[in-house]
Amino acid sequence: MTAEQLKVALIGAGRIGRLHARHLTTRIPRVRLLAVADACLEAAESCAREYGIARYCPDYREVLADPQVEAVLVCSPTSTHARLIEEAAHAGKHVFCEKPLALDLQAIDQALAAVERAGVKLQIGFNRRFDANFRRVRQAVEQGEIGLPLMLHITSRDPAPPPVDYLRVSGGLFLDMTIHDFDMARFLLASEVEEVFALAHSLNEPEIAMVGDVAHAAVTLRFVNGTIATISNSRRASYGYDQRVELLGSEGSIAVDNVYPNTALISDRHGVRRDLPLPFFMERYGESFAAELQAFVEAVLDNRPVPVSGHDGRISVAIALAAQRSLLEHRPVPLREVAWM
Amino acid sequence: MTAEQLKVALIGAGRIGRLHARHLTTRIPRVRLLAVADACLEAAESCAREYGIARYCPDYREVLADPQVEAVLVCSPTSTHARLIEEAAHAGKHVFCEKPLALDLQAIDQALAAVERAGVKLQIGFNRRFDANFRRVRQAVEQGEIGLPLMLHITSRDPAPPPVDYLRVSGGLFLDMTIHDFDMARFLLASEVEEVFALAHSLNEPEIAMVGDVAHAAVTLRFVNGTIATISNSRRASYGYDQRVELLGSEGSIAVDNVYPNTALISDRHGVRRDLPLPFFMERYGESFAAELQAFVEAVLDNRPVPVSGHDGRISVAIALAAQRSLLEHRPVPLREVAWM
Amino acid sequence: MTAEQLKVALIGAGRIGRLHARHLTTRIPRVRLLAVADACLEAAESCAREYGIARYCPDYREVLADPQVEAVLVCSPTSTHARLIEEAAHAGKHVFCEKPLALDLQAIDQALAAVERAGVKLQIGFNRRFDANFRRVRQAVEQGEIGLPLMLHITSRDPAPPPVDYLRVSGGLFLDMTIHDFDMARFLLASEVEEVFALAHSLNEPEIAMVGDVAHAAVTLRFVNGTIATISNSRRASYGYDQRVELLGSEGSIAVDNVYPNTALISDRHGVRRDLPLPFFMERYGESFAAELQAFVEAVLDNRPVPVSGHDGRISVAIALAAQRSLLEHRPVPLREVAWM
Amino acid sequence: MTAEQLKVALIGAGRIGRLHARHLTTRIPRVRLLAVADACLEAAESCAREYGIARYCPDYREVLADPQVEAVLVCSPTSTHARLIEEAAHAGKHVFCEKPLALDLQAIDQALAAVERAGVKLQIGFNRRFDANFRRVRQAVEQGEIGLPLMLHITSRDPAPPPVDYLRVSGGLFLDMTIHDFDMARFLLASEVEEVFALAHSLNEPEIAMVGDVAHAAVTLRFVNGTIATISNSRRASYGYDQRVELLGSEGSIAVDNVYPNTALISDRHGVRRDLPLPFFMERYGESFAAELQAFVEAVLDNRPVPVSGHDGRISVAIALAAQRSLLEHRPVPLREVAWM
Repeated sequence: MTAEQLKVALIGAGRIGRLHARHLTTRIPRVRLLAVADACLEAAESCAREYGIARYCPDYREVLADPQVEAVLVCSPTSTHARLIEEAAHAGKHVFCEKPLALDLQAIDQALAAVERAGVKLQIGFNRRFDANFRRVRQAVEQGEIGLPLMLHITSRDPAPPPVDYLRVSGGLFLDMTIHDFDMARFLLASEVEEVFALAHSLNEPEIAMVGDVAHAAVTLRFVNGTIATISNSRRASYGYDQRVELLGSEGSIAVDNVYPNTALISDRHGVRRDLPLPFFMERYGESFAAELQAFVEAVLDNRPVPVSGHDGRISVAIALAAQRSLLEHRPVPLREVAWM
Repeated sequence: MTAEQLKVALIGAGRIGRLHARHLTTRIPRVRLLAVADACLEAAESCAREYGIARYCPDYREVLADPQVEAVLVCSPTSTHARLIEEAAHAGKHVFCEKPLALDLQAIDQALAAVERAGVKLQIGFNRRFDANFRRVRQAVEQGEIGLPLMLHITSRDPAPPPVDYLRVSGGLFLDMTIHDFDMARFLLASEVEEVFALAHSLNEPEIAMVGDVAHAAVTLRFVNGTIATISNSRRASYGYDQRVELLGSEGSIAVDNVYPNTALISDRHGVRRDLPLPFFMERYGESFAAELQAFVEAVLDNRPVPVSGHDGRISVAIALAAQRSLLEHRPVPLREVAWM
Repeated sequence: MTAEQLKVALIGAGRIGRLHARHLTTRIPRVRLLAVADACLEAAESCAREYGIARYCPDYREVLADPQVEAVLVCSPTSTHARLIEEAAHAGKHVFCEKPLALDLQAIDQALAAVERAGVKLQIGFNRRFDANFRRVRQAVEQGEIGLPLMLHITSRDPAPPPVDYLRVSGGLFLDMTIHDFDMARFLLASEVEEVFALAHSLNEPEIAMVGDVAHAAVTLRFVNGTIATISNSRRASYGYDQRVELLGSEGSIAVDNVYPNTALISDRHGVRRDLPLPFFMERYGESFAAELQAFVEAVLDNRPVPVSGHDGRISVAIALAAQRSLLEHRPVPLREVAWM
Repeated sequence: MTAEQLKVALIGAGRIGRLHARHLTTRIPRVRLLAVADACLEAAESCAREYGIARYCPDYREVLADPQVEAVLVCSPTSTHARLIEEAAHAGKHVFCEKPLALDLQAIDQALAAVERAGVKLQIGFNRRFDANFRRVRQAVEQGEIGLPLMLHITSRDPAPPPVDYLRVSGGLFLDMTIHDFDMARFLLASEVEEVFALAHSLNEPEIAMVGDVAHAAVTLRFVNGTIATISNSRRASYGYDQRVELLGSEGSIAVDNVYPNTALISDRHGVRRDLPLPFFMERYGESFAAELQAFVEAVLDNRPVPVSGHDGRISVAIALAAQRSLLEHRPVPLREVAWM
């Protein structure tokens, strides 16, 4: 069986990196995690210790130089993604990279060109595509359970905004958060976005307003095939992590709800209530994170196309940029205004 | 159209009598309510005024003597039901009578014999058979949606016990409350009860225990066709009126839930909640009360069988008596022990 | 009690007129329906016969000339609304008028001026405000259950489009159907619309496209207080009448679901299913139609403000006109562009 | 970290044994699985290969003789449980044993005495206690969310009966299947059973009837503290695995529903439906199986009491035996009739 294991290294031992380390070491038999690199050596070391990784180092170039390493997982800050992809491609490594690819299209195009030239695989971390609920929606579309898709509505809200320091470098709501929803809309409607219209505000959120970002947004997407998607975002849903989708088709509709820690309904003199949904993405999307890695490992080992391509990563950034311009200029913005397509 | 109207009188202007008066005067075109009788003249008068009834009187014999009156609704206390049915039958009036028919089988048999002799119609007020939810369960059985019925579970709980004074004359939990569930089980399983086993307690309900009644009960019914029904009763469900049914069949199951005043779900930091179900029988079963009268009026005018017969009323009392004996003697009691069948 | 009854006449004996006739004669004690007028005398006559209305006639001017009539219900085609309101006001009658007030603002302004001069009351038939579910949302806002309102999403879909002949004169999706949702958004957010952006298509609906209308629409409203509402419309939801609302506030959210004919859940080898929601507006909004008339009668008799004013009727038309222009010119349209506010 | 790992061996490499092997090797860091024994050497070998277990053998005595092994998991057929526990205890090994302990109390008493003498720990595999849903019910009781427990209803149904060959040696419905529900009732009501009444039938299940077993059962338990539990069992719920609980307390009630593979609701012209619940115990209770092992490992390593004791295992068998006698003799059977308590 050893012969079939993909040898990978992890770059970035933060929250999401450690989640991947856990899945790689316990859930996915066909992979071996050889090393972890993090500019903060303590982080790399503690990650290595916790997950029994043989080697750790502060410099990602070390793992890129290791001929044993066949693929790397890029879980470092967004500002480093494009450069790391490029270098990894030059080193002949396959790459799994967290979203967003980058905050500007030029850096992305350069990275994708390097991947192309090197002939390596690149998968982007749009994990929600692997969630059982959203897959069920996609399946309903593919199997014709709801006929021709017509209108999509995505509700995507976080329980609370990230710290202001993160907000400042996040790229803004659309690049940081809505980007998942842009990808979801493309995934479910199986068409390309033609035009974006965004409205947003920061009512009740002075801290977010102060860094020039918005807290609540409604984005409307018009697709090439004529369908429409609306997205309702919030940085602060006081009741928790709200992740739902509803798709109207010509023969029916399908809606997926939040996921709850238990099914208990409690009735007392005050009403009928249940506990809040799973609190945030680590809990809500746990399985999907494992499934996306599984798919990446299989795509590399079996030499099949990755399920989420660099192209997918690029387009979601382009839509986010168009949404930003729409908000700024207060008009619907064609996608071709911000990117060649 | 006048020629087709059934002329009725109401005996008993209490809570349930007034509800019927309202339905007769606003919801059912084929009926005319001529008179109301109540031993308490003030009650009769206020009822007459509120619903525009031409005549009111303190003595039910007056309405029985009125040749214009074709049918009476008996809404007086349970202790008078059997006698009133008998007298009404002698007077040639059709009768709609509230449940239970009486607290003992001898009085019932005498009343049913009088009805038989007079050739009038008698319908018992098991209104729940007319509720849209329970009818849907029955329809599922009839249309084979769940295959052969196998096991039934009825949840039937009141929000709070009636006053102790009422409890004393109520006949006890089984005759007063469970009687509806006994009828429902027969209605849904379309078979006859062979044997009854009852367990009950009055935990936390000293007042109920003091009058010799029980507050919470689990009754198991074995039917002639082999199926089993379990009933879960409570005099005090702190969260309100709880009225549900679940039927397992060989090809599927059907469950009906409580009915709510609205569909609102509120999510906040404490959980996801909805308002309590409709609080009690007047609200929960409002439509079914109108529908049972409608059915009675049609059965008389069109000379068709009534949907809930005196026989149905008698059997439910017999099951209640068997449940009482089972509780007392702590053993399963065959129905034939308490009544010829 | 007679002294307290409002004497009304009905103008228009079509589907909605007859529904009002039924409610007026059976559900609302403080009103008396004296006459019904319909250009089609047969319609007037059959309506009068069915609901026991003393007088019927082909010419609405007859009922306007009747000094006994204190108020009229205008249920004739939309094209006659404004003129009828004006004439009724001249005749000193209070008016209840179905929506929309008219298809152009000039006619509306003239009608409202006549009402103003005559000092009569005018209520518009936005019945959904009286629905128990939407009232519960409004109540949650008023009682602070969800904090400060931030984002509203309305789903409003019909089971099937009206006949093409009707579509031609309907004024289009926004004036005919979305107008209810515009009013609902104002009702729930308690603010005024500043700007409208509309996207729409007629995928799979060649008949609707042929008359120049759209079948599916997503409308985004920006309110003066900064909040945002999105509306998802469809002329054809294959699964039936879909009427839901979801409101996000700073302290929580509230969502109302469709209303079902029963609560039954059937589980079999194919899945867990329930029957479709109530099929269309007559069933779904039955109670709200009675409640709006009740409110109108009380407002007149007790000389209190009507709950839905001519102003409300005018603004919803203005929003619809702005939505039309937005769709045509493909840009967000400020409401002040189409109407003085 | 090595010092803290419990060294265990697995006896029995069937379906449940392999599930435990998977959890031990991937989910529980504080354990090391040294060996697997199965009378069928091929089973032992394939299990060892799949989960990377160093040693496998056909004879459990080999692992009991291994001084490195500190604890064993008994996953062999029920008929061997008691003897294996006894021998393992003699060998000084802690034991985790699948349910039921045995089919007769004498064998159990002997095994428990051996455990007592040896001073080792014994945990029984009532995994459902570790399910998030049932734990939530227990938590509600412990935290007083529903006040004093009064009435419990357990629905516990399998999607289809096991093969007839298994049915013959299963010990019958009560010992094989209801035994989980007996334990659940004790777990949730935190009291002991005083008396058992059972009704059952095999309608539509000639194969089950032929081996002398029953297919559908309703069992009523009376507890020492006065509370009542009813259990509704079926060997064949055509719609899948049905595992629910509902507990009425003096201040409220709590109900837990089935668990579904996704949250999707599909609406089309036929109704509103969702996919079936998770199909069987491997899927439905996956997490709870991992959690019970986790708890066992911690109890041994940290020398704390096991959460499910041999006593718990013994009582559930006693209740099952009382249920069998109740069914046979058609009367409520006190638990003390079948076992000293």
